Amino acid sequence: MTASRQIKFGFLLAGCGQGYDDWRHPDAVADGSINIAHYRHLARVAEAGKFDFLFVADSLFVTERSSPHYLNRFEPLTILSALAGATTHIGLVGTATSSYTEPYTVARQFASLDHISGGRAGWNVVTSWLSGTAANYGKAEHLQHDERYRRAAEHLNVVQGLWDSYEDDAFPRDREAGVFLDPAKQHALNHKGEFFSVRGPLNIGRSPQGRPVIFQAGASAEGRDFAARHAEALFVEAGSLEATAAYAEDIQRRAAAFGRAPGSVGLYPGLRTVVAPTREEAQRKYREAVGLLRIDEALKQLGVPFDNYDFSQHPLDEPFPELGPAAYGSSRSTAERITRFARDNRLTLRETALRAAGPREEFIGDPVQVADAIQRWFDSGAIAGFNFVEALPRQIDAFVELVIPILQQRGIYKREYGAGTLRGHLGLAVPENRYTAARRGGAAA
Amino acid sequence: MTASRQIKFGFLLAGCGQGYDDWRHPDAVADGSINIAHYRHLARVAEAGKFDFLFVADSLFVTERSSPHYLNRFEPLTILSALAGATTHIGLVGTATSSYTEPYTVARQFASLDHISGGRAGWNVVTSWLSGTAANYGKAEHLQHDERYRRAAEHLNVVQGLWDSYEDDAFPRDREAGVFLDPAKQHALNHKGEFFSVRGPLNIGRSPQGRPVIFQAGASAEGRDFAARHAEALFVEAGSLEATAAYAEDIQRRAAAFGRAPGSVGLYPGLRTVVAPTREEAQRKYREAVGLLRIDEALKQLGVPFDNYDFSQHPLDEPFPELGPAAYGSSRSTAERITRFARDNRLTLRETALRAAGPREEFIGDPVQVADAIQRWFDSGAIAGFNFVEALPRQIDAFVELVIPILQQRGIYKREYGAGTLRGHLGLAVPENRYTAARRGGAAA
Repeated sequence: MTASRQIKFGFLLAGCGQGYDDWRHPDAVADGSINIAHYRHLARVAEAGKFDFLFVADSLFVTERSSPHYLNRFEPLTILSALAGATTHIGLVGTATSSYTEPYTVARQFASLDHISGGRAGWNVVTSWLSGTAANYGKAEHLQHDERYRRAAEHLNVVQGLWDSYEDDAFPRDREAGVFLDPAKQHALNHKGEFFSVRGPLNIGRSPQGRPVIFQAGASAEGRDFAARHAEALFVEAGSLEATAAYAEDIQRRAAAFGRAPGSVGLYPGLRTVVAPTREEAQRKYREAVGLLRIDEALKQLGVPFDNYDFSQHPLDEPFPELGPAAYGSSRSTAERITRFARDNRLTLRETALRAAGPREEFIGDPVQVADAIQRWFDSGAIAGFNFVEALPRQIDAFVELVIPILQQRGIYKREYGAGTLRGHLGLAVPENRYTAARRGGAAA
Repeated sequence: MTASRQIKFGFLLAGCGQGYDDWRHPDAVADGSINIAHYRHLARVAEAGKFDFLFVADSLFVTERSSPHYLNRFEPLTILSALAGATTHIGLVGTATSSYTEPYTVARQFASLDHISGGRAGWNVVTSWLSGTAANYGKAEHLQHDERYRRAAEHLNVVQGLWDSYEDDAFPRDREAGVFLDPAKQHALNHKGEFFSVRGPLNIGRSPQGRPVIFQAGASAEGRDFAARHAEALFVEAGSLEATAAYAEDIQRRAAAFGRAPGSVGLYPGLRTVVAPTREEAQRKYREAVGLLRIDEALKQLGVPFDNYDFSQHPLDEPFPELGPAAYGSSRSTAERITRFARDNRLTLRETALRAAGPREEFIGDPVQVADAIQRWFDSGAIAGFNFVEALPRQIDAFVELVIPILQQRGIYKREYGAGTLRGHLGLAVPENRYTAARRGGAAA
């Protein structure tokens, strides 16, 4: 393997497709979001392509208007635990909210997944932006944006503290001496904070990775600070390479201000491709897929990040109506990105609705074109890799078959797994247990 | 297959053994509680023996004094999801507390496990009797006994309501008409109660079993009422066959009073065997295992259900000291059972400490002896089957090899799985969705 910097890939598992009408595609697995055989297939294809991790997104609130994939899908920790046994190397990153969970439970389930998978677990920390979630969790009011992030920081701090409940050598399991646990190496956390009071210790030992990898996706000011301070890998949907690079620079500056070493946080923009053996076939596949979209549904989905704004009151074939910050609502950064996307490309409302969630033009084409675009992004130095999202059914298969070999030939992507853990794939060190560090006189984490 | 009544078996997965010193046995897998290969092996042995379900117990509070298996073990939902892929037929029953969880999360994770496993999930509802648990979940005080059971009943009611969020035919997935969901078949729960306020609907469709099977273990008056009203399968540790039969009669009487049909709730006493090809070998194995127990540790473990009472202040070789109800503490029924066990068998304190968690005399012996004892219990009509607990390492292997064939020859145990779901194994009907029932004019569940 070459010593040059290597690109990383994650793969978002979204059974029947993320878009509202994706399931209607003739090649879609319409029940894919609840079909274990389909998930096993997707996971194995990604592993055959030496992907670094699988990623399962999440939400906790649906209505009859929700996108099909969100309505009826596996829960992240259970599906990732199931996929641990169907794979051997690929990382397993699951989403869990800090707003409606207890740290003790989250710490345990991710530590358990890390043990089950031999060190492949990652936690994507989210704060749940859909205000309807509160009503499913007995809360009258959704937490305000800044309160959500304060709670998230404390929640994560408690979880990471619980993951250090046992030092690496806490369990001598000495049969003759009758010593299973060395009690000096078991630590209660005794946390008391604004949101949580947790004594500990956890009831599971330190996991193979020391701590599962922390993923995040934060685009607001609070979100960026949270990510810059805590995340080891960061999903980003900033739009163009230029916008992504600017975002990356901002994140790395913030991370440095928090005292983190350069490269402590890797950025993973979403990657949606339509790749086919020829450029013409790729363009045709994309046009066919867009032809399946219903403009009324696309308008409703477009409205979601704008607090369900009703875009149907505007003319379809005139420029995208800019609503201004007041209308951006609870998913401000997504609404801002779409607005910028429409403005930069001078799109009509119809074009914006049909293309907002689709692939960028540069990622539609033949294998070399797509590989070139990927390399251009990667060579900018702004990103660690991509999080692959299927824009069409079977794009993961096409990508692994057609694009991955080109990246391998170019020496910017591994031919074999070099490590068995997610930290290993991402080049992240195993954090030292805070108590072990304190004992040997180092700084506690 | 014979048409006679068939005995059922569950198997408690306890990696390194449930007892305090079990891990010290030469044949024990000392890291077994955190060893995925060991869990897969245990699961496959039980499935080779046509067991009806695997069972994972749980607790949410440990100290340095906790039994090794409790200190460092897999979390139930993640390990069962992992085992779903390592098995094909056996049921997967996991423990989750109603005292420190949110119904939306519990409903989702068990429904997801049921989908992942093709209809093999069961939920063992517990209320968490260890008062230290509260401190890991931000609560100053553990809920009182009766409040715990009120909360449990409401929690379960919400979970079962959420499992009915979608009728069986809620997802037509009609590509041409563009209809993924039939909105008339999606139902918000709109629950507002003493402990929970949950709007719904859930974000996962109705699972293969309609609802995962409800397991319970309740021995107090509130626990018995809860079990008699809600449980479909019930773990019991009553002691002798006579005590178990009396318990069963009480449960069935209570169940009838709640309007449930005879046989709606099946009882599963724990079954600890020491079986070997000859009676002498079995006795020798048992003596060797008892020889590994440390009396000081056994005394401490004996004290746990008595609110950590210090039994070491009493002489070891005099009759077991009866403490009276005031000292029974938070696990009253276990303390009462041990007290009765010591009294009925005229045991000393030492004998009680060493034998309280061990196998009953009648289940120590050669294969025919053990099969006879099992059949005697089963023929009483009081129980549906047993929940097998390994009294020694590899007893599950010995039981499957030596005892299961005898039960099969006698026609009281299946030679092949007759069903693919846990409900199928246990002879439980798939409950009709409450909204479907209401629509066709039947009674809503």
